[in-house]
Amino acid sequence: MLLLRHCRGLTRVGLLKTQRVQLLQGAVPPVAVCAGSLCARWGSSHGGQESGQYQRSHGPNWRHALAGLLAGTGAVLAYGLHHSQTEQAATTIVQPIAPASSLPIYTQDEVTKHRSVEEGVWVTYKGSVYDITEFVSMHPGGDKILLAAGGALEPFWALYAVHRQDHVLEILSEYKVGELSAEDWRKQQSVKSTDPYSTDPERHPALRINSLKPFNAEPPPEILSDNYITPSAIFFKRNHLPVPQVDPKSYRLQVEGLPGGAPLSLSLEELKTRFPKHTVTATLQCAGNRRSEMNKVKQVKGLNWGIAAISNATWSGARLKDVLLAAGYRPEVARQTCHVQFEGLDSDVTGTTYGASIPLNKAVSEEGDVLLAYQMNGEDLPADHGYPVRVVVPGTVGARNVKWLGRIIVSEEESSSHWQQNDYKGFSPATDWDTVDFKSAPAIQELPIQSAITQPAEGAVVERSAEEVTVKGYAWSGGGREVVRVDVSLDGGRTWQVAQLQSSEKGQVPAPSPPPGRAWAWKLWELTAPLPPAAQELEIVCKAVDNSYNMQPDSVAPIWNLRGVLSNAWHRVKVTVKEDEEKEEE
Amino acid sequence: MLLLRHCRGLTRVGLLKTQRVQLLQGAVPPVAVCAGSLCARWGSSHGGQESGQYQRSHGPNWRHALAGLLAGTGAVLAYGLHHSQTEQAATTIVQPIAPASSLPIYTQDEVTKHRSVEEGVWVTYKGSVYDITEFVSMHPGGDKILLAAGGALEPFWALYAVHRQDHVLEILSEYKVGELSAEDWRKQQSVKSTDPYSTDPERHPALRINSLKPFNAEPPPEILSDNYITPSAIFFKRNHLPVPQVDPKSYRLQVEGLPGGAPLSLSLEELKTRFPKHTVTATLQCAGNRRSEMNKVKQVKGLNWGIAAISNATWSGARLKDVLLAAGYRPEVARQTCHVQFEGLDSDVTGTTYGASIPLNKAVSEEGDVLLAYQMNGEDLPADHGYPVRVVVPGTVGARNVKWLGRIIVSEEESSSHWQQNDYKGFSPATDWDTVDFKSAPAIQELPIQSAITQPAEGAVVERSAEEVTVKGYAWSGGGREVVRVDVSLDGGRTWQVAQLQSSEKGQVPAPSPPPGRAWAWKLWELTAPLPPAAQELEIVCKAVDNSYNMQPDSVAPIWNLRGVLSNAWHRVKVTVKEDEEKEEE
Repeated sequence: MLLLRHCRGLTRVGLLKTQRVQLLQGAVPPVAVCAGSLCARWGSSHGGQESGQYQRSHGPNWRHALAGLLAGTGAVLAYGLHHSQTEQAATTIVQPIAPASSLPIYTQDEVTKHRSVEEGVWVTYKGSVYDITEFVSMHPGGDKILLAAGGALEPFWALYAVHRQDHVLEILSEYKVGELSAEDWRKQQSVKSTDPYSTDPERHPALRINSLKPFNAEPPPEILSDNYITPSAIFFKRNHLPVPQVDPKSYRLQVEGLPGGAPLSLSLEELKTRFPKHTVTATLQCAGNRRSEMNKVKQVKGLNWGIAAISNATWSGARLKDVLLAAGYRPEVARQTCHVQFEGLDSDVTGTTYGASIPLNKAVSEEGDVLLAYQMNGEDLPADHGYPVRVVVPGTVGARNVKWLGRIIVSEEESSSHWQQNDYKGFSPATDWDTVDFKSAPAIQELPIQSAITQPAEGAVVERSAEEVTVKGYAWSGGGREVVRVDVSLDGGRTWQVAQLQSSEKGQVPAPSPPPGRAWAWKLWELTAPLPPAAQELEIVCKAVDNSYNMQPDSVAPIWNLRGVLSNAWHRVKVTVKEDEEKEEE
Repeated sequence: MLLLRHCRGLTRVGLLKTQRVQLLQGAVPPVAVCAGSLCARWGSSHGGQESGQYQRSHGPNWRHALAGLLAGTGAVLAYGLHHSQTEQAATTIVQPIAPASSLPIYTQDEVTKHRSVEEGVWVTYKGSVYDITEFVSMHPGGDKILLAAGGALEPFWALYAVHRQDHVLEILSEYKVGELSAEDWRKQQSVKSTDPYSTDPERHPALRINSLKPFNAEPPPEILSDNYITPSAIFFKRNHLPVPQVDPKSYRLQVEGLPGGAPLSLSLEELKTRFPKHTVTATLQCAGNRRSEMNKVKQVKGLNWGIAAISNATWSGARLKDVLLAAGYRPEVARQTCHVQFEGLDSDVTGTTYGASIPLNKAVSEEGDVLLAYQMNGEDLPADHGYPVRVVVPGTVGARNVKWLGRIIVSEEESSSHWQQNDYKGFSPATDWDTVDFKSAPAIQELPIQSAITQPAEGAVVERSAEEVTVKGYAWSGGGREVVRVDVSLDGGRTWQVAQLQSSEKGQVPAPSPPPGRAWAWKLWELTAPLPPAAQELEIVCKAVDNSYNMQPDSVAPIWNLRGVLSNAWHRVKVTVKEDEEKEEE
């Protein structure tokens, strides 16, 4: 009965098409619809891989899944849903069933009075009124939910397509307290809700999409390691919000917060001409790269990245150091302030922009190589990568490399943004959403040593007659620490061989070794080894070592964390050895 | 017969006392002595723990052990011998058996002609002549063996007590080519070989000695974590050579190699008065800390350190940066040179001094905090820790923190010393002494994340009635990366709890958080947890995380390396839970 109760006022995307929903409205008792939904849900757990994924987020552990679904306004969650499902969810209009209700009718004015926990937090959705006061403290993303208080949910859900899923509606239905007056509901509908993602750029079809809105996608691994410099089109995309349309002519970069200095405002042209152009080859990696491996241990929150939320590019722009000096930075400033905050021009419906910060010493160090980049791989930044200007913080987690940069603030404090304070931090495997204290962990800056196998793919077949197997991959470490060795095992980690490292495009002269502490770019690696004579299956494993001799941990479970970040255990791929047909016939 | 052949001219310390050896000389055929030695050897493999250790280095795998014994002139090897055995070896006079020989007699002049691989490499030992030409290329320590060419081995073996063991003599005997003329042998004996270690300082009796000459010792773990600042007397000692006697009045520190600058020579007084005194609390760790755990996987070369080749002290002195500036360093120097070499005043009989180098950017960085320290824990440096002046390179492996500092050389090259070039580097578990190429790996500088359990000890008994168990330890990371979390498991790593961190003496106000990248000191940690109800044994495990979110690897075998350095896998301690006697009686 509990599940039935949750079904009140709920429909299910895909099972019931829009037309049928409209037909059902007011005609069929909602419980019948729920029963169909339940059957489909339970049945799905016996399906194939996709169904299995579906079941993970839609199965009986719905409270767990819910916590995931609502985590962090920026950390948009896909939960292993294949992108085609995401696409479907984003393009199908979800309509709740609005049965003849005995609940009271409220005007918009009455709803609007409930905008705080003290007064109650009410919202409307598709003509119904919900009192979500009790839910506010359960929203893992925190107070941001209050932005919708007293008004309609639709504009927020337009921003984060992930909200448009069954379980969100299921939970919402629990808090229904009434209906919006017919007049106010008509008024709401007449306000055309525009899709803030409609101006997002076109993307390369090879990308594997984790989330459409905001757009998050990674290249197929076997393509990733084909190029030392990742082509911009397939460089992994990690957007937290819609891509903003920035007019390069009116663009201004604001620099503030320097004690005694006046704010500096720079046009794009000034940024390009007043400061020396500096070029750095740097690898960027999302904190959530390889999160899918943590999901196999236990479900975590976040986009279900494979191994390719990492890419390598050449970035050109002004040094942040030079711009800060022009804005009045002097060494003595370091005694008063210790962070440099960045604000993006990408924003949600409330105008809240993406934000992050880095330590001041990284920002002003001659050897930090922090750029205000306006070029990627020799061309203007693509829209998805921050046109016209982004920060590139070599050696530092992707999340601090703020795109569509609007403002730089030198400050005593870290960025107060959600993404700096309550996201992108690592915790013990023992920490869960009931016990987590985000203040207890440092914001991720430098990333730890990482490597993965891009080839062969999991489940690939190697012919015995080939006599050898070639393994390829990438390796990188944060903080400018150079990868000095990659060990590869064909037998699950019992014995190891050392791979060949590659630090330029194949066939080109290898780049000279970077100065100590400034190895910002990854190394590709390759090993060709004889097939072990008796093996029918190979468990290929890789692990890298950086020049501080940091090693990757052996296994995933002991580094599992509730946000699924920093997934850098040994990477493992199983392949089958196919005996020669002749031999088999013998 | 092979073993019998190796026994020619060989005696055995401990089994045959000096007097008996003298009696045996010329009276009993050497084979009989060998037979006794062999029996004792094979018998020992069935003995207790100490015998077991003995067997490891004296058993049939003698070629393997030999390679170990002779590795690196500086990397003195103890092979798990208990220090009392080492002591015995160092104080018992080893006498080879000198049987009536049919071999030719050579004069010293004839021996002296053989000082190169081309002319043959001859040495004498106790009146016999050996042609070791073939062995030179097998000496893992490299060319240093040539220093003894054409002369007596005794002065070299006086420097490294480890040579005075059975297997070294066993191998040497294979190369015997003749006897030294009676006259020259008498001359050699009349040259009193003085013990270069006779002026070494007295040491604290609590120290666990790994090697007496040179002196290498660590404190008992349970004492180590009693103090946040390790008292100097029990701070681990790692000497490569005899402790030099330095007169503070005549002491001069030479600074050389700065392009365009004249060499600078500073007295101790000038160092103390011309430069601001700077104080840093920094943890030093030997690269070989926890090597004993690698030995359990497979024998490695080096002192058999437990978990306490790490300590924390407060160091005061001049900044290296300030001294380099006074010697003419300017930022443009960094474009021509990139290393700062250090030479110690400790030397071997040939005058070769201990040496090491660090990257120039670490040396000159405002935030590198590299000191020319003349105080440790508020007092003059003790003799064992480099009196009057040593380098302290926070965040960097102990081996670069050169003691008894005599000379600083700014250079395009790393130090050419054995310890920089052919020691203190990490390799793949697949690399052995046949395949190792020391040029292929970077010299260890920053050390990786580390932690260990100091309490309870392995094999300790916890009373069930206590209801809880308290676990203590230390955690540290190199490169100024701050330890942000220590996870402790009582069940071998299946579940974890987060320990309390301590960054000052107990009861004192915690030190403020260090600036980013300058966390030079360790953290002590502690966890008190309920005893798991059913467990009869606890496998306690710890692992630490630094603020670059580097983690320790899970297990030792995959990071095993032939020198046994960088041993930083999870630390594991097994303890027994003793049920209450009452309960047992029930």
